[in-house]
Parts: sequence; C-alpha cells; structure tokens
Amino acid sequence: MPKLLILSHNGDEYTERIRQADLPELEIVSDPAEADIVLGEPRGIRDALPLLTHPKWIQSLYAGVEPLVDSSQRRDYTLTNARGVFGELMSEYVFGYLLAHEKRIFKRRDSQQARKWDRAESGLLRGKTLGLLGVGSIGAHLAGTAKHFGMTVWGYTRGSESSGQVDRYFHPTPLPSPEGRGGIIEFAQGLDYLVVVLPRTKDTDKIVNADLLDALPPHAVLVNVGRGNAVDESALVEALEQGRIAGAVLDVTEQEPLPEDHPFWTTRNLLLTFHTSAMSYPEDIVKLFTENYRLYVEGKPLMYQVDFERGY
Amino acid sequence: MPKLLILSHNGDEYTERIRQADLPELEIVSDPAEADIVLGEPRGIRDALPLLTHPKWIQSLYAGVEPLVDSSQRRDYTLTNARGVFGELMSEYVFGYLLAHEKRIFKRRDSQQARKWDRAESGLLRGKTLGLLGVGSIGAHLAGTAKHFGMTVWGYTRGSESSGQVDRYFHPTPLPSPEGRGGIIEFAQGLDYLVVVLPRTKDTDKIVNADLLDALPPHAVLVNVGRGNAVDESALVEALEQGRIAGAVLDVTEQEPLPEDHPFWTTRNLLLTFHTSAMSYPEDIVKLFTENYRLYVEGKPLMYQVDFERGY
Repeated sequence: MPKLLILSHNGDEYTERIRQADLPELEIVSDPAEADIVLGEPRGIRDALPLLTHPKWIQSLYAGVEPLVDSSQRRDYTLTNARGVFGELMSEYVFGYLLAHEKRIFKRRDSQQARKWDRAESGLLRGKTLGLLGVGSIGAHLAGTAKHFGMTVWGYTRGSESSGQVDRYFHPTPLPSPEGRGGIIEFAQGLDYLVVVLPRTKDTDKIVNADLLDALPPHAVLVNVGRGNAVDESALVEALEQGRIAGAVLDVTEQEPLPEDHPFWTTRNLLLTFHTSAMSYPEDIVKLFTENYRLYVEGKPLMYQVDFERGY
Repeated sequence: MPKLLILSHNGDEYTERIRQADLPELEIVSDPAEADIVLGEPRGIRDALPLLTHPKWIQSLYAGVEPLVDSSQRRDYTLTNARGVFGELMSEYVFGYLLAHEKRIFKRRDSQQARKWDRAESGLLRGKTLGLLGVGSIGAHLAGTAKHFGMTVWGYTRGSESSGQVDRYFHPTPLPSPEGRGGIIEFAQGLDYLVVVLPRTKDTDKIVNADLLDALPPHAVLVNVGRGNAVDESALVEALEQGRIAGAVLDVTEQEPLPEDHPFWTTRNLLLTFHTSAMSYPEDIVKLFTENYRLYVEGKPLMYQVDFERGY
C-alpha cells in the first residue's frame, strides 16, 4: 500500500485536498521511515532525505529543484517537479508585462498625474518577435499565448524541437562560429522580447551576458522568469543604464531577497517582481499529483521527471 | 468603373496602399462628384456628404460612426465601419490592464522604489469572470482572449447570442423585474471585470449607472473601451472614492480631451488612457477594404454594415 509523506508549509491544505481526491490505496503517513512517496517543497525534502528508508517517488511542489539535484544528495528514487502547472501562470505574468510595455501603462499614468491628454501611440504585440531562452513545458505555453496575440516565436534550446508553436528554433553550435557564440547571437538579433525560462544549471550561468545583450536590438526588453544565475547582472545594469536595451523585468535574481545595496533597485527601466510570477497553487499541484499517482500505481513512467545530471 | 474618394488625414498612405493592392477596375479620384465609393474618417466624410452626387458605399476607418448616423444626414448609401479590425487591438489593451491589475504592476514598482522585497501574492485571471457589456465583433474577440486565459465569459447584449466563446448570455428584460433593471443587475453581480464595448446610441446613455456599479462586487474593475456616454461619470467617481468597486480603466470619456478640472484626473483607482486603446492601422483597414471591395463588385452584401437606425 503506497504511503505518502507530505512536507510542506501548506501541509494541512495538501493533506485535506489529497484526502478529498480519494486516491485508491493511498495512505498519508507522518513518519519518513514509512513513506515511499513524498510531496513537498525541495528544501524541506532535502532535509528529510536521510530519514527516508525506501523512497520511490518524490514530487516537488516547485519547478526548480536545486536542493535535490545537488550532487551531494542521494538519487535512489524518481524525482518529478511541478513544471507542468506553471505554464499558464507564467503566461499571465509575462504577457502582463509585455502588454504593459506596449501600452505604455506607466507613462500613461504619469501623463494622467500631470493632467496631460497623452495621445502618444501605443505599441502592439502583434507582429513582434518573442524569443524563448529555454523551450520546456513553460516555454511552450508562453509560445501559445504569443501566437494568440499574433507574435512570431523563436526558441533557443539545447533540447528537441518539441513545441509546434515555435516558428524557428536555434541551438547551441558545437564550436564557436564566426559570429561569436553560434546560434544564440543570431537568435538575439531578431528579437523584440527575450524571455528567459531556464532552470539553474552550470550551463545556464550568465548565458545572458554582455555579448548577448549587445546583440539584442535597442528596443528589446528582457524578461527573466527562470533563475537569477542566467543573467550577468553587472552587464545588464550597464546595458540598461546606457540605453542599449529598452527594459528588463526580473522576477528572479542571483540573490533573493535582493541585497539592499544592489544596483537593480534603481537601475533605469528595470522592474523587479520579487519571485512572485508563479505561485504553487495546491489545486494545481494536487491535480498533477493525482495524475502522477495513477501512473505510479500502474507502474508507468511519471510525468515531469527530473534528470539529476541535467538538473531539471 | 468604380471610383474611390479617399478622405483621410492619412490620405497619402491609404492611396499608396490601395494602389499596391491593385484592385480590379478601381480608380482613385479626388472629385467628390465623381465618386461612388468613399473611404475615410467619419467627420471628414460627413463634411463631404453634400458634395457626393451618387454615393453607393462608404467605408469608415473607425468603428464609431456617430457623425454619419446623425438623423440630419443623408442615408442613401451603404455605410460600413471598421469594427472588424479592432478586436485584436482591443484585446491587447484590455488584457494588458486586466493583467496589470492582477499582477499588481503599479504596486510592485512602488515596492521596488521603496526597496521593499514585496512577496505579496499576485492574482490570476484564470477562474475569474469577465462580463462584456456589448457582444459584437470586438466583444467576441475579447471573449476569445479571456478563454485563452481560462476565464469565464458572460455577455450582456440586446442582440443575438452570436459568440460561442460566451459562457452565459444576459439580455434586457422587456419590463423591469423585481431585481431592478432585469438581467443587467444579475449580470453585474457575478463579475470580476466589466468591460464596456458599446457604441454611442441613446440606448447606451449612462447604462453604467449607480445601480449597476452597486451591483458589481467590491473587488470588480470596470474597463470602458466603447464610448464615454455609457458611464454615469459622477456615479463612477462616487463608487471609486467610496471603494465600492476596486478600479476603473477608461479609454473614453463623455468629453474628449477631458476638461482640466474634471474629477477623473485624480479619482482614486481610476486610470485614463486618452482614447488610445485601438488605432486604425492602414494595413488593417486596407485589408478590410479590399475584402469589402471584392464583395462590392460582385454585388454581394458588404461586411460590417451599419444600421442607420440603431447607429452602429
């Protein structure tokens, strides 16, 4: 009989919702030694890993699972993350900020405060090009929303070309090409928006560096909803302060909370959103857990498995 | 041979684009007495109406055609408006402001300016209910975007239930029902967002009055992208100042430009956008004109015909 340990700040709600889901044979336990399944936040699970005697499947509430894929941790179980539930949440966030930029939402309010009848033309998403740095399940959902708004979608990935909503794919080149870092520079040159949806791995460290920022057109806007490590922060401050790109919206930063003396607080045309772009809603997670649980009891492959080596 | 008169501030661009479209048999003329077809802004066309000797078809560049449906004007021709091109433009605007509200875009920037790491939860459009006051071709497009974001869509219309994306329709009741003005109150009570997409007619005057505003839940937000006459402006100021609804976004007002001493400039939680929600893009209009021209030469009914009596 499968035994589930729930390790979450929101444990009562998860317990209640999973009881209501009435999953066949599932028993909820509180002793780590008894559990074969664990559901929870990555950090709490990491602390409990040594106490688990026979973990088979661990379901993370988050998409990012850095504490669990650290090479010092055990890997004798199947790890699944929650990336499947964040696509629509991320889509609301990203397109909220893209539209705010096109519609000059802050500038219009400034005009109102100055009692100025501001007829300056708004921009359109329609016809613009969105570049996805990382095209997993979240990226694929963003691509769908971009197509709804009549945008062209480009994707840069080292993975397969799995989303039919991406109009053109770019991949890392094995050796540096004459233009620099291969496909990524050509990718950046054609974008109006660059949206970073990468997990934190050593391969994604500072992938958005000075070269990449220089390749973006001056009217381009960067949005990072992945992880802070992907952005070379001092290169970004420089690009924004010199007006070499038009703006940046950062939900994630290298250090969170951001240190009080960090330049990002006051960098020109940079908006911070404090890692709030997508919450884990128990309703979504329990739905995902339920689907995965059915696969688990049938002995089938689970959805959204994490590759410990890749780190996502 | 059809003869087209172009009456627009943007006349050179329209002339050039229509020449490029290479429409069979169409000749562009500058003498109103020669023209059977006119393309232009409603106000300019109205001034030229007395000079037209045999107008057959007039295509407005705008959706609103108030100057042409005025009962003092001639009506011996087919009038078509441009409502077909504004759906996607309005969708960008409306969902930009809806998402800005849910994502607390202004508040997050205030937090940033105060160097405060603001982890307050954002809201979601998913699961919320959007009410369309007016469900024509623009409303139908808004409904499609709302469904993309997982919203429920209600529509209030005196017309037919033509959009399959509207989950529930409400109609005017012939006599006042016990709840007040019939269906519109029940409609308003269930909404998170009320989006007004009505043309200016005598039937739409102050349809958003104190009763309707009172029926909205206190967390509701009003968006007006139709015409300013639809809103009882003093009732709206009162509802906002007393916190009886959460916000309003007005692209249109009774007087435009808004008088300098109008309370809207400083009404709490009210945003003005100065009639910029949807521009007429020559690219869109010429596409629409081309389609209608083909119907015209084949003697078929034109798209987006205006009913002079209804006024839209």
